[in-house]
Amino acid sequence: MSSLESDKVMSPKLTVELLRQLRLAMKNCKYFSEPIQAYIIPSGDAHQSEYIAPCDCRREFICGFNGSAGTAIVTEQHAAMWTDGRYFLQASQQMDNNWTLMKMGLKETPSQEDWLISVLPENSKVGVDPWIFAADQWKNMSKALAGAGHSLVAVQDNLIDAVWQDRPPRPSTQLMTLGLERTGMSWQDKITALRAKMRERKINWFVATALDEIAWLYNLRGSDIEYNPVFFAYSIVGMKTIRLFVDLKRLEDPAARQHLQLDAPSRPELSIQVSPYEAVHTELQAVCAALGPKDKVWICDKAGCALTQVIPKTHRSQISYTPLCLAKAVKNATEIQGMKTAHIKDAVALCELFAWLEKEIPKGTVTEISSADKAEEFRSQQKDFVGLSFPSISSVGPNGAIIHYRPLPETNRTLSLNEVYLLDSGAQYKDGTTDVTRTVHFGTPSAYEKECFTYVLKGHIAVSAAIFPNGTKGHLLDSFARAALWEAGLDYLHGTGHGVGCFLNVHEGPCGISYKTFADEPLEAGMIVSDEPGYYEDGSFGVRIENVVLVVPSKPKYNYMNRGSLTFEPLTLVPMQVKMMNADMLTQKERDWVNDYHRQCIETVGAELRRQGRKEALDWLIRETQPIA
Amino acid sequence: MSSLESDKVMSPKLTVELLRQLRLAMKNCKYFSEPIQAYIIPSGDAHQSEYIAPCDCRREFICGFNGSAGTAIVTEQHAAMWTDGRYFLQASQQMDNNWTLMKMGLKETPSQEDWLISVLPENSKVGVDPWIFAADQWKNMSKALAGAGHSLVAVQDNLIDAVWQDRPPRPSTQLMTLGLERTGMSWQDKITALRAKMRERKINWFVATALDEIAWLYNLRGSDIEYNPVFFAYSIVGMKTIRLFVDLKRLEDPAARQHLQLDAPSRPELSIQVSPYEAVHTELQAVCAALGPKDKVWICDKAGCALTQVIPKTHRSQISYTPLCLAKAVKNATEIQGMKTAHIKDAVALCELFAWLEKEIPKGTVTEISSADKAEEFRSQQKDFVGLSFPSISSVGPNGAIIHYRPLPETNRTLSLNEVYLLDSGAQYKDGTTDVTRTVHFGTPSAYEKECFTYVLKGHIAVSAAIFPNGTKGHLLDSFARAALWEAGLDYLHGTGHGVGCFLNVHEGPCGISYKTFADEPLEAGMIVSDEPGYYEDGSFGVRIENVVLVVPSKPKYNYMNRGSLTFEPLTLVPMQVKMMNADMLTQKERDWVNDYHRQCIETVGAELRRQGRKEALDWLIRETQPIA
Repeated sequence: MSSLESDKVMSPKLTVELLRQLRLAMKNCKYFSEPIQAYIIPSGDAHQSEYIAPCDCRREFICGFNGSAGTAIVTEQHAAMWTDGRYFLQASQQMDNNWTLMKMGLKETPSQEDWLISVLPENSKVGVDPWIFAADQWKNMSKALAGAGHSLVAVQDNLIDAVWQDRPPRPSTQLMTLGLERTGMSWQDKITALRAKMRERKINWFVATALDEIAWLYNLRGSDIEYNPVFFAYSIVGMKTIRLFVDLKRLEDPAARQHLQLDAPSRPELSIQVSPYEAVHTELQAVCAALGPKDKVWICDKAGCALTQVIPKTHRSQISYTPLCLAKAVKNATEIQGMKTAHIKDAVALCELFAWLEKEIPKGTVTEISSADKAEEFRSQQKDFVGLSFPSISSVGPNGAIIHYRPLPETNRTLSLNEVYLLDSGAQYKDGTTDVTRTVHFGTPSAYEKECFTYVLKGHIAVSAAIFPNGTKGHLLDSFARAALWEAGLDYLHGTGHGVGCFLNVHEGPCGISYKTFADEPLEAGMIVSDEPGYYEDGSFGVRIENVVLVVPSKPKYNYMNRGSLTFEPLTLVPMQVKMMNADMLTQKERDWVNDYHRQCIETVGAELRRQGRKEALDWLIRETQPIA
Repeated sequence: MSSLESDKVMSPKLTVELLRQLRLAMKNCKYFSEPIQAYIIPSGDAHQSEYIAPCDCRREFICGFNGSAGTAIVTEQHAAMWTDGRYFLQASQQMDNNWTLMKMGLKETPSQEDWLISVLPENSKVGVDPWIFAADQWKNMSKALAGAGHSLVAVQDNLIDAVWQDRPPRPSTQLMTLGLERTGMSWQDKITALRAKMRERKINWFVATALDEIAWLYNLRGSDIEYNPVFFAYSIVGMKTIRLFVDLKRLEDPAARQHLQLDAPSRPELSIQVSPYEAVHTELQAVCAALGPKDKVWICDKAGCALTQVIPKTHRSQISYTPLCLAKAVKNATEIQGMKTAHIKDAVALCELFAWLEKEIPKGTVTEISSADKAEEFRSQQKDFVGLSFPSISSVGPNGAIIHYRPLPETNRTLSLNEVYLLDSGAQYKDGTTDVTRTVHFGTPSAYEKECFTYVLKGHIAVSAAIFPNGTKGHLLDSFARAALWEAGLDYLHGTGHGVGCFLNVHEGPCGISYKTFADEPLEAGMIVSDEPGYYEDGSFGVRIENVVLVVPSKPKYNYMNRGSLTFEPLTLVPMQVKMMNADMLTQKERDWVNDYHRQCIETVGAELRRQGRKEALDWLIRETQPIA
C-alpha cells in the first residue's frame, strides 16, 4: 500500500507562491479583524486523531513535509517547521529553502514559543485554527506569548484551507453497523452506562470529540481515515438527549437509520437527534446557554479549543481520559472472543506468508514491499478482513534498525538468506484488530544477532509472564522488558506497549507500557495491550518481538490485602523463530514459556490451518513449533 | 531516645482554652487588618524540613496530635485535623473532642479545600502563616478558595505563637566546621560552582531555604533539629555577593568566623555578609528592589510563600530541585570514602548488637526499647559518632508489621526466640550517615516467615545487582524490588529507596526508588540511595532488608549509544541472616550474590572488628557469613 504514495515524496515542494498567498490571508480582515503576524499550522485534525484524512494534511500542504509529526509556523518574514529526530532527513528533503527545519530534541533548537518571541515585532497577534489546536496547547502557548506582550488569537476559518485550491473534500464513507454479536453491548446500553458515570460525578453533559470513542459508542464503523475504521462525527450526550453530528447523507442508508433507531426510538431518552457535522459548535452554544448554575460539561483536555472554549469555565470539567475511553479499553466477553478469532485468522495469514517467503526468497525476487503486499494478500483472504491496521513495517537488514521504517521504492531492499527480516504489521477484521511483529532469518543468523534477539525475547517473556497486583499501572512493567538488555549494556528507545482497540484504532489509550508516561490508567482484566520490546543496531539490523496480549486475572499463591493479581494472555499466536534464539541464554522458566507458547500456536492456529486446508503453512507451523530442549 | 517523650503521648490534650484564644487572635486586627474566619496550621517549618524543632511543633501544640504528618484548620465554629492512615488511632487518642479527625485517603473524607468551602460563611478570609505555607500549596489553596468566593490571606505573625505562652526558643546550637578532609570541596568552590550554574541558566540570584542545602554549601553542621545535623539559616547568593542569615551569636565562635573567613575574606566576591536569621525578608526585598529588568531569582518551588512572593513574578524562577540539591546528591571521592568508613563503624556496632542479643534474649530481659538503646550505645563507642540519624524502629513480631513503628512503653515488646525481630536504625558520624534494616530470628523461623523473607531478599538483590543505563530515573527500578513478591501475590506499600546525605539528612532528594514519583532526577555515579523492600504480615511479623548503596559505573559487555551503564555497590556491610533464607527459592545468581556480599562483610568489617579487638562480635560475624551452598 505504500508504493503508490511515495513516488513524489523525496523532491522538495515549491512553496513561494503558497507562502505569499498565506501571508496575504494573514493580513486579510475577512478572516480576522486585524492583521496577524504569525500563523501556526499543527499536524492534527479536529478529533486528536493519530492518523488523519488527506483534507486535514494542512501542514504537509503548506511545507511539503509529510511525516506523521510536525508543526509549521509562518510569520511575515519566516517559515519554520518543527519535527523530531525520526524525520530530520525526510523533512530536509521535502521542504524547499523557504523553510527552516527546526530539529526538536537538539539543545540549540528553540521551542516554538521562544522562537516566536525572538522573531515577532512587539505586540504581535499569533493566529491558530481553534478546531485543531488542543485546549492544553492553547493554554501553554497563550501564556508564553502573553508573557512577552503578544497574544494568541483564534482564526475561525482555516487559512490553509483558504489558499488550498484543490483541497480534497472531507471523506464521508458508508457507515457499517455492528450488531450485538460483534459488540456485546448495544449503543443504548453504552449510553445508559455513560449517563450512570455522569450521574456519579454530577456531570450533566458530555461532549465526545475522539472518532474512535464515537464509533465505539454507537457501534458504527466508517473508513474516513486510512487504517482506522472511524468516521467524522461529534456527539453531545445529556441526561435526556443525545445529539450526533455527522454528514446527514450517511444517514440516508436504511441500515444505519434502523441501527440508530432514528425513525422509531425505543424510548424518548434514547432518541438520537442528528445534525450536520458542522453544526456542533452552534448546538454546543445552545446547550451551554441553557445550563443551570451548577451544571457541568465534560470534555477531554485534548479536545480542540474551539469547542472547549464554548463551555464557560465555571461549567467546564476537563478530563484526561473520558468515560468512553476508559469503558472502551476494557473489552467485554464478545469483544475478547472477536479479538481471539481475528488473531487466529491473522496467524493463519502470517504462517502462509512465512512458508511462502521460505520458498521464494532464494529466488531473489522478494522485496520489502512485495513481502508486505503478500502479507496483505494472505490477510485479505481471511473472513471479515477489512484492511490493514497501519502501514506495514517490512524491513531487511539495516532498514530494520529504523524504528518507524516504511519501505519506499528508493529504499526497498531484497529479502535474502543473509539478513535479518523484521515485519511489523496488522489488520482490521470485523471482529478485531491485530498488530504483530516477528523478526526472522532465512539463512543462518550471526551469534550476535541471536544474542540480541534472545535479550529481546527475555524482555518480551518477562512482561508477558509478569504477575502484578490489580491497580498496577502499565508503566511499572516497562523495566521488566529492558532488564536483560540493560544487563548487556543495550536498550531500545521506544515504549514497550500500547493499548489496542477492537476493530478500532491499533493505538488507543488510556493504558500502555512505557517509561515515558506516568499518566496511564491502571491495567485491568479485559484490557488489551501490545508487548513489543526491541533492539536496533544502527546500520545493521533490528529486532522486535511483538504480541498483542490480554490482561487476565491471575491466581498466585497469596492474595495480599485481597487486591487480586493480574497477568497477560497472548492473543497473537505466531511462532517466534527458534533459529534466532540462543537457548543457552534462556532460563528453564523462559524455555518452558517458549514451548508452552508454541504449543498454543500449534493447537489453535494449527487446527484452523487444517480446517482451511492450508497444508504448506501447516507444515511450516509444525516445524516452527518444535519444543526446544 | 524514644522512652522519654512518650509518657504523656496517649492522653488527649485539653484544647478548649487554647482554641478560645486562637479564635480571639483570628479576630484581632493587630494581626490582620480584618477578622479572619479560618486559620490553617500546617506541620512544617519555614525550611521544608522533614523533622522539625520543638518551637515549630505548632500543629501538635494546638491539637495535641504529635505524629509527623497532619494539618489543622480552625474556624469560628470548627476545628479539624487531617492526617493519613498511619496515624488515625494515635490522633484519635491525642485529640480531645473539640477536634474532628479527618481521615485522609477515605472516600468520605473531604479535602481541606472542600471542607473549608462547605463550612465557611460567604466571602470569608482564610489565614495562613506564609513562612511555613509552601508556594505551591498557596497556589492550589488560593485558587480553590477564590473559586468559591473566599480568599486566602497571609498573616505575617504566626497566630499559634501568639497564644503559645511557653513556646520553646528557636535552637541555636554551636556550629561545627568541616574541613576539606571531610567535605572534599571548600565552600568557596561550592559557591563558585553554584555561580557557574547560575550563569549557565542566566540566573542572577539564588535564595537557599532548605537547611541541609545551606549546611552542605558552607561545610557547617549544627544540631538545631534532632537527628538532622543542620542549623537554622537562609542564604542569598548573587554573582558578587553572599548573604548568610543566621543567629549572629553563633558566629562569635572563632572557629566558625575563621571557617567562613568573616574577618579576612580571600576575595571580595567570596566575602560573606552575615545578618540575623530574621532579616532575610527585608534583605530579599532590598535585593529585589535593585533587580535589572531581565534579572532572574531562583527559589525552590517548595519554599515558603513569604519569601517566594517577595520576588516579583517576572523575575521569579521556581525550580523543583535547586542546584545545591543536585550537587549535594552526587558525592565526591572524599564524601564517598567518609560514607564507607562510617558504614564500617556502623556495621561493627551492629555486629556487636546482634552478638549481644543472641546472648541476652534467652534471659527474657531485652525489649524493643532496650535493644534500640543498646544499639545506640554500641554506635556511640565508634569514632566521630554524633547521634542517631532517625528514631530507631525496633520491632518484634506483630509490631514489625507496623511500617512506621517506634516503640513506646505501652507497646514495648520483649525479644524472644519465637518472634521475628526487625531493626531499622542509623547514625550520624562526622564522616557519614547510615541507615540499615535487618530482619532476624533468634530461634527457628517458620517456613512462611522464611518464604516471605526470601521474596524480599530476591527483591533487594534484584535492585542492588541491577545494571541500567546512565540517565535512568530511580523509579524505573522500583518494580524489580517487587517482582518476586508480586509473583507470589504479595507486595509492600512503601517506596523502595530514598536518597541519603553524607553527615546530613538521612532522607534527601532529588533521587530515590519509588513507584510513587515520576519527578525524581536521573541516577548518576556518586549518588547514594537506600534499597529497602519489605513485606508486612498484619498482626504477625514484618520483614525489611535495607542497605545503603552507592551508584557506581558498570561495564557490561556492550555500551549502547555510548551512554554508559550504572549499578549499585552496597555501603552497608552487615550480614543478612542466612537462617531466614529459603535457599531453594534462590537462583544460583542470587546465592552467589549473597555469598559475595558476605565475603565483603567479613573482609572489611571483620578486619575492623579485629582491629578494635571485639572478639565476640567477630566470632558472630564469621559464623553469620558462612557461604550458602
